[in-house]
Amino acid sequence: MPQYVNIANVISDRIQKGFYRSGEKLPSMREICTSFNVSLGTAQNAYHFLEENGWVIPIERTGYFVRQSQLVKKHLPNVQPVVQEPIDIKNWHSILELAASSPSDGVLQLGRGMPDIDSPSLKPLLKALSQTGKNTDKRALYYDDISGMKKLREQIARMLIDSGCDIAAAELIITSGCQEALSIAIRTVCEPGDIVAIESPAFHGAMQILQASGVRVLEVPTDPITGISIESLEMILEQWPVKLIQVTPNCNNPLGFIMPEERKKELLNLAKKYNVMILEDDIYGDLSYRYPRPLTIKSMDMDGRVLLCGSFSKTIAPGLRIGWIAPARFFDRVLYMKYTGTGSTTSAAQIAVAGFIEDGHYLPHLRKMRTIYHRNLQQTVEWIGEAFPTGIRMSQPQGGYILWIEFPKNFNADAFNKHLLKRKIQIASGSIFSSSERYNHCIRINFGHKLALLKKGIQIMGELLKSESFYGS
Amino acid sequence: MPQYVNIANVISDRIQKGFYRSGEKLPSMREICTSFNVSLGTAQNAYHFLEENGWVIPIERTGYFVRQSQLVKKHLPNVQPVVQEPIDIKNWHSILELAASSPSDGVLQLGRGMPDIDSPSLKPLLKALSQTGKNTDKRALYYDDISGMKKLREQIARMLIDSGCDIAAAELIITSGCQEALSIAIRTVCEPGDIVAIESPAFHGAMQILQASGVRVLEVPTDPITGISIESLEMILEQWPVKLIQVTPNCNNPLGFIMPEERKKELLNLAKKYNVMILEDDIYGDLSYRYPRPLTIKSMDMDGRVLLCGSFSKTIAPGLRIGWIAPARFFDRVLYMKYTGTGSTTSAAQIAVAGFIEDGHYLPHLRKMRTIYHRNLQQTVEWIGEAFPTGIRMSQPQGGYILWIEFPKNFNADAFNKHLLKRKIQIASGSIFSSSERYNHCIRINFGHKLALLKKGIQIMGELLKSESFYGS
Ligand SMILES: Cc1ncc(COP(=O)(O)O)c(C=O)c1O
Ligand SMILES: Cc1ncc(COP(=O)(O)O)c(C=O)c1O
Repeated sequence: MPQYVNIANVISDRIQKGFYRSGEKLPSMREICTSFNVSLGTAQNAYHFLEENGWVIPIERTGYFVRQSQLVKKHLPNVQPVVQEPIDIKNWHSILELAASSPSDGVLQLGRGMPDIDSPSLKPLLKALSQTGKNTDKRALYYDDISGMKKLREQIARMLIDSGCDIAAAELIITSGCQEALSIAIRTVCEPGDIVAIESPAFHGAMQILQASGVRVLEVPTDPITGISIESLEMILEQWPVKLIQVTPNCNNPLGFIMPEERKKELLNLAKKYNVMILEDDIYGDLSYRYPRPLTIKSMDMDGRVLLCGSFSKTIAPGLRIGWIAPARFFDRVLYMKYTGTGSTTSAAQIAVAGFIEDGHYLPHLRKMRTIYHRNLQQTVEWIGEAFPTGIRMSQPQGGYILWIEFPKNFNADAFNKHLLKRKIQIASGSIFSSSERYNHCIRINFGHKLALLKKGIQIMGELLKSESFYGS
Repeated sequence: MPQYVNIANVISDRIQKGFYRSGEKLPSMREICTSFNVSLGTAQNAYHFLEENGWVIPIERTGYFVRQSQLVKKHLPNVQPVVQEPIDIKNWHSILELAASSPSDGVLQLGRGMPDIDSPSLKPLLKALSQTGKNTDKRALYYDDISGMKKLREQIARMLIDSGCDIAAAELIITSGCQEALSIAIRTVCEPGDIVAIESPAFHGAMQILQASGVRVLEVPTDPITGISIESLEMILEQWPVKLIQVTPNCNNPLGFIMPEERKKELLNLAKKYNVMILEDDIYGDLSYRYPRPLTIKSMDMDGRVLLCGSFSKTIAPGLRIGWIAPARFFDRVLYMKYTGTGSTTSAAQIAVAGFIEDGHYLPHLRKMRTIYHRNLQQTVEWIGEAFPTGIRMSQPQGGYILWIEFPKNFNADAFNKHLLKRKIQIASGSIFSSSERYNHCIRINFGHKLALLKKGIQIMGELLKSESFYGS
């Protein structure tokens, strides 16, 4: 890693830990040179890097400052208390509505986890897709191996090194999106009636998979900065025969945190102690604003208890439906579930993605998108601060393009969503992120859209919040 | 339907019923003109149509004759007796081997259900696939509706009219191949421990899905001409609480029969009487050699008990992974299983297939492939007759490209398969089509390949059968 990135990481780390506070002036170039013993050029590069990634802003003739409205601890969403009993999952119909509205009907989709697909850095992917129809070997028409295209698995194995994982291509299975990976993993590890511990709030799709698999869930209090509460989890593991812990520790959906490394280790140790498996969803991990990207829990796993899954739905495009799973000790059974669930995975999209990565387009694309999303975040937070009423709390995403907003307890997010739909804006109501009615006053929005659209969306939301009351008694 | 097709159908029907026998001279043109009261041109067209579809051959200056080696009743495979108890399914490893050998390693794949994808009639499909990378609306990159692309569902709904079905686009769900359709349907209708009645022999993939879903199966004796035995099935339904009957009544895999219409009706009535659901797999239905194509059981279903599924894996190309299901009264639950299983289906392949059908390329392609497969069948049967030892029995496929060959009882198909692999030929051993070791003396081959390859493959098989003994004691 270049020296300037190291320095930038030290500084962003300090910002994150509150050592340098929001709006505070940062050390001068000269100070950086002295304290890190580097040249002026390196110090400049470090600050440019921090600026590009949205951590700092330059003020002419004065120096660099920590960006405002980042990391304001006191405005973080509240952590919900632990639930006493495993529960069933509902909300299927709201989720269906969320998934049913297609992009063509003029609705600004702030509710779905759709990435920005208009970046020119995706052009080579579209070209690769075109090529699949021209391949003289017609690979796009053949059944692929059940475990997926070897070339693609090799590229994913290479990519996974960045998250600390040493996984061979032969240990990976390509799936129809991360959804299939999660679904297979859960049905492999659990039987109907088993108990699964999940973060709260949790990605609604995963919750629905858990329900469809007939398992019960225990929602574990989750901190918006440090992730799932190890303490609550231990209490739960003592009381209940939990089979599996399902987490999204990197750039969590919906809370946006990256679980600190020590916490990841603690979680793994806890899983070992109680002999529980971990299903780690890393779908947003490559979109971390910090470089290098955070480690996965899988990278620390020595006894094959962590099943890691991911996909290109957030980093490239969801319509491809290309995901993967590293099923560790469950490989054979997961492969069997893959075969009986869908057979092999669509060939054309696999060929296109493998080509895109192999030709060196994936990393520059990621770099670009990370920067865009981080800048969008700053803007979004600023605009929301201006347009929304006071008293709201917000997550502090460390990657990706998902923001969680908490209103006062008596706010009705479902009603807000319904009203917004009339104005052609769709959000995700917090109600679908839990089964225990804990987030009915929260919303989740996608800030991966074009800034102009975002601005308009936030303004309309702000106006509606002022003109109508969504607060109950 | 044109008059000449009607006449051709009457004649092929008579051939099939044994009224005109193999090698027999058929009525002259003049006789046709008189008995059907049509012009000479129409009579000629009828014979050309029959010739093109492989029913008859012309002999110069003499007339038309029924093609040899078709419909020799006495050489049909034997029907196996009924099994007394529901059983578990095994054979996962042989199936994995079957699915693992990819087309690139120089093995002639007579074992897999791969269609011929080299026909020029598929060129528009490849072009449509190329277009998906060029679409300015980037639809290939978006999440699609969970139920699938509307345009594609509309085309499938239109297609289904040919099989007698009046199903709206809104009643269809697109899936990742027929495999996902079967898998979802079984998990929707059945719970672990339930009993499912299936044909014997049955498609190994469906059997594996049944196992993965934790259900038990009852293998029902199945006639190579008329399909699943209604009589045995009734005995079974009287004794066992069967939840679901899973059948492939049109161009059955592996036996190739098309169940006669009256039998389909009887099956449906039986299902009604015992209040059992039917899962009908129509994946090969469009490849029937007879035109118009046969009706589905679904087309006779008035109370939504038949779940119909299919895909383009056999008619266009399996690498697309585009299938569908008409879940009847189970629509909501099936949609839910689709969402939790894989989310939406890959967009690029859906767009390409919808375009291919919409632009009128599908029906001509089908016509072409049906003709090729029917001719291949005649050739294959002739070559096998020459190259293989006497005493074998063969199915009489009415569509598709799958042939079932039965050797004497003490033949070891697995050993034969292993030896063949050394000579770079792969077949499907009968052992994977049942869980009760009933077809260890049978093989299934795919005659959809180029004739030159087929001929070579059959010759090598014949030589091996002569030089080595695969007969046990
Ligand atoms: C955390 C998380 N996991 C899994 C998925 C499903 O991903 P895919 O579209 O690859 O199936 C999503 C998508 O919304 C997600 O946010
Ligand atoms: C009878 C039958 N059903 C279903 C399938 C699976 O089809 P797909 O490739 O569309 O998943 C096959 C393929 O071999 C088959 O022969």
